[in-house]
Amino acid sequence: MDTAEFRRLWDELAPIGRADGGGYLRFSWSKADLACRDWFRAQAESRGLRQETDRNGNLYAWWDATATPAPEEADFDGRAVLTGSHFDSVPHGGAYDGPLGIVSAFLAVDRLRAEGAEPVRPIGIAAFTEEEGGRFGVPCLGSRLMTGVVDPDRARALTDPDGTTLAEAMRAAGADPDALGPEPDRLANFAAFVELHVEQGRHLDGEDAPVGVASAIWPHGRWRVTFTGVADHAGTTRLPDRRDPMLTFAFAVLAARKEARIAGGLATIGRVLVEPNATNAIAAKVTAWLDARAPDEAVLGEILRGFESKVVERAGRDGTGFAITAESETPVVDFNAVLRDRIAALLGQFMAREHRQDGGAPILPTGAGHDAGVLAAHVPTAMLFVRNPSGMSHTPVESASDEDCAAGITALAAVLRDLAC
Amino acid sequence: MDTAEFRRLWDELAPIGRADGGGYLRFSWSKADLACRDWFRAQAESRGLRQETDRNGNLYAWWDATATPAPEEADFDGRAVLTGSHFDSVPHGGAYDGPLGIVSAFLAVDRLRAEGAEPVRPIGIAAFTEEEGGRFGVPCLGSRLMTGVVDPDRARALTDPDGTTLAEAMRAAGADPDALGPEPDRLANFAAFVELHVEQGRHLDGEDAPVGVASAIWPHGRWRVTFTGVADHAGTTRLPDRRDPMLTFAFAVLAARKEARIAGGLATIGRVLVEPNATNAIAAKVTAWLDARAPDEAVLGEILRGFESKVVERAGRDGTGFAITAESETPVVDFNAVLRDRIAALLGQFMAREHRQDGGAPILPTGAGHDAGVLAAHVPTAMLFVRNPSGMSHTPVESASDEDCAAGITALAAVLRDLAC
Repeated sequence: MDTAEFRRLWDELAPIGRADGGGYLRFSWSKADLACRDWFRAQAESRGLRQETDRNGNLYAWWDATATPAPEEADFDGRAVLTGSHFDSVPHGGAYDGPLGIVSAFLAVDRLRAEGAEPVRPIGIAAFTEEEGGRFGVPCLGSRLMTGVVDPDRARALTDPDGTTLAEAMRAAGADPDALGPEPDRLANFAAFVELHVEQGRHLDGEDAPVGVASAIWPHGRWRVTFTGVADHAGTTRLPDRRDPMLTFAFAVLAARKEARIAGGLATIGRVLVEPNATNAIAAKVTAWLDARAPDEAVLGEILRGFESKVVERAGRDGTGFAITAESETPVVDFNAVLRDRIAALLGQFMAREHRQDGGAPILPTGAGHDAGVLAAHVPTAMLFVRNPSGMSHTPVESASDEDCAAGITALAAVLRDLAC
Repeated sequence: MDTAEFRRLWDELAPIGRADGGGYLRFSWSKADLACRDWFRAQAESRGLRQETDRNGNLYAWWDATATPAPEEADFDGRAVLTGSHFDSVPHGGAYDGPLGIVSAFLAVDRLRAEGAEPVRPIGIAAFTEEEGGRFGVPCLGSRLMTGVVDPDRARALTDPDGTTLAEAMRAAGADPDALGPEPDRLANFAAFVELHVEQGRHLDGEDAPVGVASAIWPHGRWRVTFTGVADHAGTTRLPDRRDPMLTFAFAVLAARKEARIAGGLATIGRVLVEPNATNAIAAKVTAWLDARAPDEAVLGEILRGFESKVVERAGRDGTGFAITAESETPVVDFNAVLRDRIAALLGQFMAREHRQDGGAPILPTGAGHDAGVLAAHVPTAMLFVRNPSGMSHTPVESASDEDCAAGITALAAVLRDLAC
């Protein structure tokens, strides 16, 4: 794979939705998102790929089958192989998380065509909507609607930070929110889904490998945590008379970290809303979101139970109210083992032999959720990771070298050829 | 004073800027503020008071002198006696903080006229701009501009939470930001300023008195505190690899409270801004505002030094950055003692004798800043407080009974008669 081809396509997409500071504001159904969708359509058109948008706003570009399967494949079902990822970002996120999977998919198709490959199944490139939950708060919204995990009525009523509902945002973007809903027939037509993604840790860097294969996604979830007290004047209310939810919230931030550390998982509070949020007023209410993940569900439960009991006790002392509600809970996802091992073996063939003496690619778990994790319950699914030497994610610092991105495209092309040609 | 008169005027003003939940969103130069200003002008006009707006957007209604001073007052200077307060609110603040002083001023003028009083000096009713700092962050902005404490260039560039500058907001409201600046001649023409205000604690309730007189305003200030770290993915970044400013911030909230408790002052963090503020991203930056107050400047200094040293130590452990900048610092304000004692004695004459056997009104300090505190450096200044049984402030729960408000108007009328008639 020529890195110049990657760079050319990458630079075309890169300016869309890029904010001062280099981070991205690509929120679903925003102007930046619509520009990404236009770019996707132009890419599909220039390659003569058949275009489709599903009920949930997910985009597809199809390279339909041009060959017939070998006669010995008597039970050939003709179902599609899907790849792709998402355009949307967290606020001020990096360039690679999502878009790398889409750009790589178009270039893998180019590569296969240049090699004269002919698919016996349709190969689809997907761009899923609102994977990050960066605008409407529910991650993997597009794939969750498709798989029926999120109720369409609930989805339509989701609001962004400005109070705009998803239904309003879709209508403003010319999409039809009334169409939202599950698509079992579409899902049944996917033989496999392979999502290529930038790695969100340093595993591959440690293994000195440009590309790896996912083993599993840690169980994880988001909980909305509210702390309620009594607003009062910061300059006149005696300390013993206060019921200040900011104190309970501060305790909770430290408690979440401590429980995660003890149990061996992750817990983060990165989003906070304070009311009335005035310098000289004691807060009336603090709403925070807890993100927690762990290698298994027992550990995740341990973190949550420890957090809740410690915070309840503290709220009692502060005279404040405390409530915790799950916004999303995702059990552990073990990716299809047959597909995973087949891909790992395949990738090992072109990875530097000196580092991969067993001939396979590194197999690594991830703490991050993905559309692949949602589809895995319905379709044999795999993920490819591309090395990110910073190990960082959801920040403009996230990166992958052009060489490693090219290796990712080579890997994805090999996988698509293996599965569909 | 008839409570019905108070109630009628109060109910006229009350709906302006009232939000769902009963709190007020009366931010300076907003539509609600302009409606309050219109109401002020209508009140002045219906009473035949001369109207004036100063360079800084502060409003005045003047009852000019109609009598000549007694011949024995040979050194009579003819300077004005000013009363009044402010319309603007903190976000979702109460109805009384500010407006009570303006409504009471108009009704005190009515009372004096009904009694046939004739001023020998102009009596002015003022409505100061942005007392709360609820929109542009600098409290007592109107009086601070007038007294030259805030630089007009700095003021014009202040931004509200939407990024609108004061200059832009003033222009949009038809006011001229280029005129902002000090008014020494105006200040020199004030013989006294008396601000009536709802009490922001339970002192008068404990003393069973409807009205009291201020002794001093505690020294106080606002500090902007920034915590910087590294944004990263909440699901993939190992705890030891994190530089999470939310942890340092949480520690700081608890440290501020502890230092204030030990030293015997007040410290509050009620306003917080998180970037990028995404559920699944470790924060890159947390900005918080510390409000601290104490009975004297030594105790205030002790709180700040303790806070800073503890947080610096913690930031070192968290691998985060920490910076603290004063946004405003106000030294202790001791109100004019002669004026204070004269008013206390005067008010004692009509306060329930059984509770005030010394014949004087209660004299109490306050932790809250006021325009009276700013003007006190230039003009003999006093404050009257009206009982607030809730003891609460900057919340819709803040209240005063109609009877106590009427007592406040009687008191203010007596003070204006004493000083100006």
